[in-house]
Amino acid sequence: MIARRFLRIHIADEIFNAAEVPIEWEEHYVGTEVDPRTQSFVTWESLESVRRNKVGLKGPMATPIGKGHRSLNLTLRKELNLYANVRPCYSLPGYKTRYDDVNLITIRENTEGEYSGLEHQVVRGVVESLKIITRHASLRVAEYAFHYAKAHGRKRVSAIHKANIMQKTDGLFLKCCREVAEKYPDITYEEVVIDNCCMMLVKNPALFDVLVMPNLYGDIISDLCAGLIGGLGLTPSLNIGEGGIAVAEAVHGSAPDIAGKNLANPTALLLSGVSMLRHLKINDKADRIQEAVLKTIAKRKYRTADLGGSSKTSDFTKAIIDHL
Amino acid sequence: MIARRFLRIHIADEIFNAAEVPIEWEEHYVGTEVDPRTQSFVTWESLESVRRNKVGLKGPMATPIGKGHRSLNLTLRKELNLYANVRPCYSLPGYKTRYDDVNLITIRENTEGEYSGLEHQVVRGVVESLKIITRHASLRVAEYAFHYAKAHGRKRVSAIHKANIMQKTDGLFLKCCREVAEKYPDITYEEVVIDNCCMMLVKNPALFDVLVMPNLYGDIISDLCAGLIGGLGLTPSLNIGEGGIAVAEAVHGSAPDIAGKNLANPTALLLSGVSMLRHLKINDKADRIQEAVLKTIAKRKYRTADLGGSSKTSDFTKAIIDHL
Ligand SMILES: CC(C)[C@H](C(=O)O)[C@@H](O)C(=O)O
Ligand SMILES: CC(C)[C@H](C(=O)O)[C@@H](O)C(=O)O
Repeated sequence: MIARRFLRIHIADEIFNAAEVPIEWEEHYVGTEVDPRTQSFVTWESLESVRRNKVGLKGPMATPIGKGHRSLNLTLRKELNLYANVRPCYSLPGYKTRYDDVNLITIRENTEGEYSGLEHQVVRGVVESLKIITRHASLRVAEYAFHYAKAHGRKRVSAIHKANIMQKTDGLFLKCCREVAEKYPDITYEEVVIDNCCMMLVKNPALFDVLVMPNLYGDIISDLCAGLIGGLGLTPSLNIGEGGIAVAEAVHGSAPDIAGKNLANPTALLLSGVSMLRHLKINDKADRIQEAVLKTIAKRKYRTADLGGSSKTSDFTKAIIDHL
Repeated sequence: MIARRFLRIHIADEIFNAAEVPIEWEEHYVGTEVDPRTQSFVTWESLESVRRNKVGLKGPMATPIGKGHRSLNLTLRKELNLYANVRPCYSLPGYKTRYDDVNLITIRENTEGEYSGLEHQVVRGVVESLKIITRHASLRVAEYAFHYAKAHGRKRVSAIHKANIMQKTDGLFLKCCREVAEKYPDITYEEVVIDNCCMMLVKNPALFDVLVMPNLYGDIISDLCAGLIGGLGLTPSLNIGEGGIAVAEAVHGSAPDIAGKNLANPTALLLSGVSMLRHLKINDKADRIQEAVLKTIAKRKYRTADLGGSSKTSDFTKAIIDHL
């Protein structure tokens, strides 16, 4: 458990306890000062804890802006080599948006692409940044996507790309996806250009099942999809590393304006906890908690302000526990 | 007039005639064979024609795939230095989608960024592509965006970026936008990260007015926005070059499956023609044609198959002329 803000993580603890989830938490606070060993607000101890326990649940964290600090999220991905970011995205029964038929999973390459950090000024007024695509990382995330699709009974994997323009980089990504696709004859494989993908997603998201893509496209499309079902406050996220490591996270910001006011919506964190439990194969508890969260949201009465309600966080939490 | 398919361009001609638009067309057919002077299907004559006349209207063109040909669209942008792509995107009265309050303009840098074409293999299994951002092109498109906003009575310009990751490239783009923004104190300027922008667009597109952005983000967001109002078949596009040059275009594909069957929807081409007329300051005719097109679409009876109707192209065209 890596927490910047105490409250939301504490709620997860409370609900997991009520559901009798067999987990012992180790708590780590990050974001108070820079740890010289990581050159980041993410402490060495928190990284060690995830390495030792293999799983983590991370509260919303925002990096202090404009002080030249390395992003907390990027530090975690990099230090723990979290290579795939998995975000299930489905219409929540009872929570109305313009879409009611979203049921897809975005799987994002999490380590390279446009996030290489390699940028420089060529001459005054001309800058360049490098997008790096490797066979290693592309195969790895493609393998994960097809493995995930198969394990979850999903029928189709769409690789999202812009290989009509970036023929070598996105071309290599596609080549790797095709290689892996051949090993999964029961899963339909298709390739969709990112601009067309975004148009299709807003017109008819039911066309998609599992989407796999390079880093930046994943960043963009996973947020777009979150928007379809109501926003980042409702979507779980799980980062997968080598050797079974996984860090679940609420990807929305830390909302400092409402911190400590008993107003926050812990849904993304709780559903991320559910993803973590599934990763640990504690499926019965995962189902139970997920159901209780969704039932609570479906009842307007307990919705927090960000969902258009006026419930306090504590009442929302209590309602979830009552539904368990 | 640059046409790959005769039919749709011919319809534009028919309607422009009916509206008594004072234009004499020069017709150029492209896409039949490679012109050695341009190394592309785009003929030298068609480029010369646009340079001489300063404006062009381009039918839908698709580049033959997998034959190593340079994209027709990219060739035009490059050869004519079409630096800004402008796409007005508004909910069509009477054509229902999930959104009814879209009214925004995307302005895309059209010459550099991820479209540099600079890519190479570093070692086996590691490829990189270069994203180039220049002060020159960023200032130029930012100037265009603010100028456009002011000329059209728009109140807000949003610069879309990922400068939290690409601090140097997207950072330079933002710096240029800020410089230009200072000269327009009456227009609100804001910066929105691309992933968040996509989430906001699908949740509440009415938040946006004029959006300006680097090439790839523009490619993605303009298609996303087209999706909100019904697709590329309904959205006009105008490419702006130096010295008053402008090429209007239908950006959707050439739909070879329905070619010659009297089934195509010429709306995007017609509305692009309207954008061209506005560029030429022939505003009365622009208004008249736009109104006739929108009224025709609002009547279900004349919708073509792509809009869920069963009208022939010729009946749709006739109905527009009746509405003029
Ligand atoms: C905060 C930011 C660096 C991060 C990213 O771009 O990856 C975020 O948008 C995300 O999706 O986790
Ligand atoms: C066809 C393709 C090369 C082009 C682009 O990526 O710019 C298209 O998507 C567009 O938006 O005009």
